[in-house]
Amino acid sequence: VTAIFNFGAGPAALPRAVYLQAQAEMLDWQGSGLSILEVSHRSAAFIALYEQAVADLRELLDIPAHYQVLFLQGGATAQFSMVPANLLRGKGKADYIQTGTWSDKAILEARRYCDVHIAASSAASGYTFAPKQWAVRPDTAYVHYTANETIHGVEFHTLPETGAVPLACDMSSSILSRPVDVARHGIIYAGAQKNIGPAGLTVVIVREDLMGQVLPGQPAMVDYQLLAEHRSMYNTPPTFAIYIASLVFKWLKQQGGVAALQVLNHRKAELLYHCIDQSNLYINRVQPQDRSLMNVPFTLDDPGLETEFLRQAEAHGLLQLKGHRSVGGLRASLYNAMPFAGVQALVRFMDDFARTHGFS
Amino acid sequence: VTAIFNFGAGPAALPRAVYLQAQAEMLDWQGSGLSILEVSHRSAAFIALYEQAVADLRELLDIPAHYQVLFLQGGATAQFSMVPANLLRGKGKADYIQTGTWSDKAILEARRYCDVHIAASSAASGYTFAPKQWAVRPDTAYVHYTANETIHGVEFHTLPETGAVPLACDMSSSILSRPVDVARHGIIYAGAQKNIGPAGLTVVIVREDLMGQVLPGQPAMVDYQLLAEHRSMYNTPPTFAIYIASLVFKWLKQQGGVAALQVLNHRKAELLYHCIDQSNLYINRVQPQDRSLMNVPFTLDDPGLETEFLRQAEAHGLLQLKGHRSVGGLRASLYNAMPFAGVQALVRFMDDFARTHGFS
Repeated sequence: VTAIFNFGAGPAALPRAVYLQAQAEMLDWQGSGLSILEVSHRSAAFIALYEQAVADLRELLDIPAHYQVLFLQGGATAQFSMVPANLLRGKGKADYIQTGTWSDKAILEARRYCDVHIAASSAASGYTFAPKQWAVRPDTAYVHYTANETIHGVEFHTLPETGAVPLACDMSSSILSRPVDVARHGIIYAGAQKNIGPAGLTVVIVREDLMGQVLPGQPAMVDYQLLAEHRSMYNTPPTFAIYIASLVFKWLKQQGGVAALQVLNHRKAELLYHCIDQSNLYINRVQPQDRSLMNVPFTLDDPGLETEFLRQAEAHGLLQLKGHRSVGGLRASLYNAMPFAGVQALVRFMDDFARTHGFS
Repeated sequence: VTAIFNFGAGPAALPRAVYLQAQAEMLDWQGSGLSILEVSHRSAAFIALYEQAVADLRELLDIPAHYQVLFLQGGATAQFSMVPANLLRGKGKADYIQTGTWSDKAILEARRYCDVHIAASSAASGYTFAPKQWAVRPDTAYVHYTANETIHGVEFHTLPETGAVPLACDMSSSILSRPVDVARHGIIYAGAQKNIGPAGLTVVIVREDLMGQVLPGQPAMVDYQLLAEHRSMYNTPPTFAIYIASLVFKWLKQQGGVAALQVLNHRKAELLYHCIDQSNLYINRVQPQDRSLMNVPFTLDDPGLETEFLRQAEAHGLLQLKGHRSVGGLRASLYNAMPFAGVQALVRFMDDFARTHGFS
């Protein structure tokens, strides 16, 4: 039996140990005789799970005490509205960094709420780099950036100073892949379906002094302050998704935390980018210093070979390598749960495929 | 080993057959080699699952073609905002029926959006009946009612005529428990965590002509029209929750559909209400014709016995019988997945407990 490796961008593969535990406990969680799916979110057992998950995430990302951790619904897309609705605080203007599809979506939604200024952009290049200089308005409410562009494969590895202006970050596809300086941010948010858990859960980490000034006329559920006061249980939370996330956090701690994952993620990405760069079949146009460690998009020098590439890859157990429908091409996502052996298998296949088709 | 029956109000017990299938497929869904948790929502296999789930729900509830079926996030609480944001259509006023905690919450949220008129209320009685006459304003945008009050145990078994005014219904705790005349409604919505599936999924059934006039300045994700255009995939949907719901829909069809469930649900509720009414220990104050078939709240003539009741019930495998923290007392939820044998076991225990403590 060939080992199977899922390179999909999300909902993405989770650690096998997590699947096994979820499977084992499906009909009897913690000896309760109940499935985790039917445990009340108000029960002492679930509250304990929830509090431990928050504590584990705080430990993993070294989150300062004056930040709230919220487990919400609606994905990053809901946050595209909630960030301006909460963080504008009467300022009426926000600055955005434009680096690909996901920052574009955030910008489009923010324009419903305020005067948006593009403080830096790589659009003219076709999104091939992460801008190093930002023209931030000093009186802007916040600066929003997308830590990792899942579709374009561009990642910020350093950030310019923004002084007193809070940073707002969509970290959906890179959270927990490496350490992050939370204290430089006003807010960090992430859809769970890459490095955290199932689709349908969103993690928000928000500085307490930025809460409590939500725009009038918005839905109650948009208000971070209200959600924090109810410890993410203003309404019934996605309990199963939180349970899976709690198992992923435990697994991450067992792996040595995000510093250990960062080392492994560097090794995985280097192996794949090396394979691409030394080949005359595979092409990645992102500037080397801004390449994503999580999502590696590439094209073929002969695009007519794409279908055959995907067919053969699948036969080798290398799945979901098709690029996003908006940009085409191919893409390998290397989230935390992707083992080094998966990237080795991919690179072996890619080398063979290139040679077989007359490339090096 | 004592059989275990979970009477919790939600997240509630799902059919055992569903747990077993989810467990069996956890590491390999449909022979894909992938867990359902890591399948792309854009994959042909998942789209097929999604379309089948929508088709099964349409069949189960006999949903007319001019209604959209949406699978969303945020629970009924999100719908408390989305209903006025979409259905007001410039009218600026909406009528609400007040029958308990959940309609109270819907009313509170609607007041952020419009002039709310209480067209009927049972508040003065302590929420012990479902009003039969409603004083609906003829120029109101819609009339909202809560089909079943999960906490107060009051259910609408008939509805007055509202003429051309659309009905908006929170059906969270009674959807799929019996047939419903969808065509009398402008919109029906339901959090999944009672009769549909895991917490974190919300089903919305909305008449097409009521979409497309969302209030300005609201988040994009509030707009039913936008969500319908993207077939519930404007952003990544809660894929695992939709998968579980699809299994529940299949199970419901195997049971004979909602008409068969209605018969069973009547038998279950009658057995329990008979036990309560013939006893001088147990008390349910809801008017008999308006009692809920899904949630049966009751108190003890000697409230000091509650703790002992819960302790002994748990020892008999009868779980989560504690009433909602806002009203206290006890509550047995009898959703579709509760077998008749569960209610028999509960009634046997309740009869014994009453006798043991000097009651009949």
